[in-house]
Amino acid sequence: MSTELEDYSHKRLNILTGEWVLVSPHRAKRPWQGQNEAVNNEKRPTHDESCYLCAGNTRINGEINPKYEDVFIFTNDFAALQKDSPDFSVNDGLLIAQSEKGICKVVCFSPDHSKSLADMDANEIQKVVFAWQKEYKDLGGNDLINYVQIFENKGAVMGCSNPHPHGQIWSQSTLPNEVDKKNTQQLNYYQKNGSSLLGDYLAQELEKKERIIFENDAFVVLIPFWAVWPFEAMIVPKAHKSSISDLNEEEAYLYAEAISVLTKAYDKIFNTSFPYSSGIHQAPTNGEDNSHWHFHMSFYPPLLRSASVKKFMVGYEMFGSPQRDITAEKAAQMIRDLV
Amino acid sequence: MSTELEDYSHKRLNILTGEWVLVSPHRAKRPWQGQNEAVNNEKRPTHDESCYLCAGNTRINGEINPKYEDVFIFTNDFAALQKDSPDFSVNDGLLIAQSEKGICKVVCFSPDHSKSLADMDANEIQKVVFAWQKEYKDLGGNDLINYVQIFENKGAVMGCSNPHPHGQIWSQSTLPNEVDKKNTQQLNYYQKNGSSLLGDYLAQELEKKERIIFENDAFVVLIPFWAVWPFEAMIVPKAHKSSISDLNEEEAYLYAEAISVLTKAYDKIFNTSFPYSSGIHQAPTNGEDNSHWHFHMSFYPPLLRSASVKKFMVGYEMFGSPQRDITAEKAAQMIRDLV
Ligand SMILES: O=P(O)(O)O[C@H]1O[C@H](CO)[C@@H](O)[C@H](O)[C@H]1O
Ligand SMILES: O=P(O)(O)O[C@H]1O[C@H](CO)[C@@H](O)[C@H](O)[C@H]1O
Repeated sequence: MSTELEDYSHKRLNILTGEWVLVSPHRAKRPWQGQNEAVNNEKRPTHDESCYLCAGNTRINGEINPKYEDVFIFTNDFAALQKDSPDFSVNDGLLIAQSEKGICKVVCFSPDHSKSLADMDANEIQKVVFAWQKEYKDLGGNDLINYVQIFENKGAVMGCSNPHPHGQIWSQSTLPNEVDKKNTQQLNYYQKNGSSLLGDYLAQELEKKERIIFENDAFVVLIPFWAVWPFEAMIVPKAHKSSISDLNEEEAYLYAEAISVLTKAYDKIFNTSFPYSSGIHQAPTNGEDNSHWHFHMSFYPPLLRSASVKKFMVGYEMFGSPQRDITAEKAAQMIRDLV
Repeated sequence: MSTELEDYSHKRLNILTGEWVLVSPHRAKRPWQGQNEAVNNEKRPTHDESCYLCAGNTRINGEINPKYEDVFIFTNDFAALQKDSPDFSVNDGLLIAQSEKGICKVVCFSPDHSKSLADMDANEIQKVVFAWQKEYKDLGGNDLINYVQIFENKGAVMGCSNPHPHGQIWSQSTLPNEVDKKNTQQLNYYQKNGSSLLGDYLAQELEKKERIIFENDAFVVLIPFWAVWPFEAMIVPKAHKSSISDLNEEEAYLYAEAISVLTKAYDKIFNTSFPYSSGIHQAPTNGEDNSHWHFHMSFYPPLLRSASVKKFMVGYEMFGSPQRDITAEKAAQMIRDLV
């Protein structure tokens, strides 16, 4: 790697969004005098009577969860998107709005309240992957739905209101901003080069080996060159797969293994249950040709220096560009050593 | 206003960035079981011996602050951007990076450690505006600098590491992402219509009056139609001014008054010193014709339901689009009632 990238402020291009991240490697040394996050390393019970996601418990709307044994999915009781709302639009000069319909679901990863993905083995996580595949197919098959966003908020610091292992799916009629950007960048590249943008990028990374954390026969875990969050990472299939639908059973297992390896390593960085938001970006379900898409799962963890000191994406980051101190290469090395 | 906007999920277009925000008005009622922020309403002393921003105190690098009486500015001791780094770039296939130079400063608003902008009167804030004007001109006049980002992180929850009233200026060689987007949108509109995008928008808002919080002879404080944060607001000059340099002394006072009115109202919403990140977006200092720019100052406050419950921009928001529950119109009404 160019040693200048290790010493001097620079910006790196995110080839998937077309946006830049400011990197200030020299700044990793500044002292921290700001807010510390509460750390909760308390062991949770395997079943919590007051948890609305535990098997057999009653949710706020009165429904009773089944006595599920692995994965359990239900429609979000406080969904941000509605299925049956009217169609409308506002086109009043510079006031522009459109109705947006959708379906939101909650995906419990395990009945065991005490676990997180990091505590589950690849066989258990494979069942979560199967559930995602089914939802992507079913929701995507609905005429109303043109994009299915699968994500997880883990940890109180990431706005997660319940520690029970779970993620969410928000599916909707139009492509959200971030997906729209990645759609454009991948399409332009595919039309120009006839190959997958992320596939070609992966080939470069596998040769350099500077940002690789782990690989198996079907997947690579790496820190992207343009990572924003201190320990941001990405899981990418080696083959050009547009969505998780393209994975067979064996590949679903290898995907689960990649998730397992990364989340376990994360927990070791600061010896704490590592908070993050993760999400899968993949082909829209709009019936168009989406062969330019190469699906990938990203992890955005906020912690920076310890279990209680996070990176704040505030003033400059909100008004200018995202900014990071520790380089992608240093972060990759740290996590690789913990795998 | 279309009553559908009050009841059903929809998306609104941010005309300045070209991006969308998802609005879920029906969701404002969901219960909160997640993280509560620490609230610190403790009265601070007017001078704190351990504060590195107070007058006469010694900073970490050994420099001693002068016994300043109103505004004090110095170069950031842990600057994210460096002035004297070498020029370099990486153009290695899909790995793309460029050196980025810049100058970062800290702006103390007052020697009084106990205050915030909300506790200062318009005459005191006017001195801050004068200081911003001088820095915008001086930094912008430097050949190295093509954009000057003025911002403030207020409150521990916004990553502010010192409660002493202060903001920052990060100035740099290229336009950061958000500025670049707004540059394009304003330029396209200006070329097509021969008028200011924000000026024309303002005319619509002043007629509708649904989202206006306050106005004086030169400025309007409003909640933009596309606001993302629960109580996000914007201060816009009525006349088409490209930057704060275009303000005369009287206008600088009226700008200070607008800041004063908004920050005081904010503190009343939850009866707490209201955290936010604020920033001024204005004409780049790249020597080009920037007459399409209409400067504005935005406030992004995170609190949602109380002094201790904030809105988390996490999973869906990071991977999809920003999302809000309470509508811009409701928020405007709440703040207007507190002015
Ligand atoms: O410069 P400070 O106040 O130490 O740092 C704060 O503001 C910076 C600019 O928005 C951010 O990069 C930091 O994450 C935040 O903690
Ligand atoms: O749906 P939850 O877990 O209650 O809510 C959490 O995730 C949502 C989707 O990212 C966010 O909109 C909320 O701000 C966050 O608190």
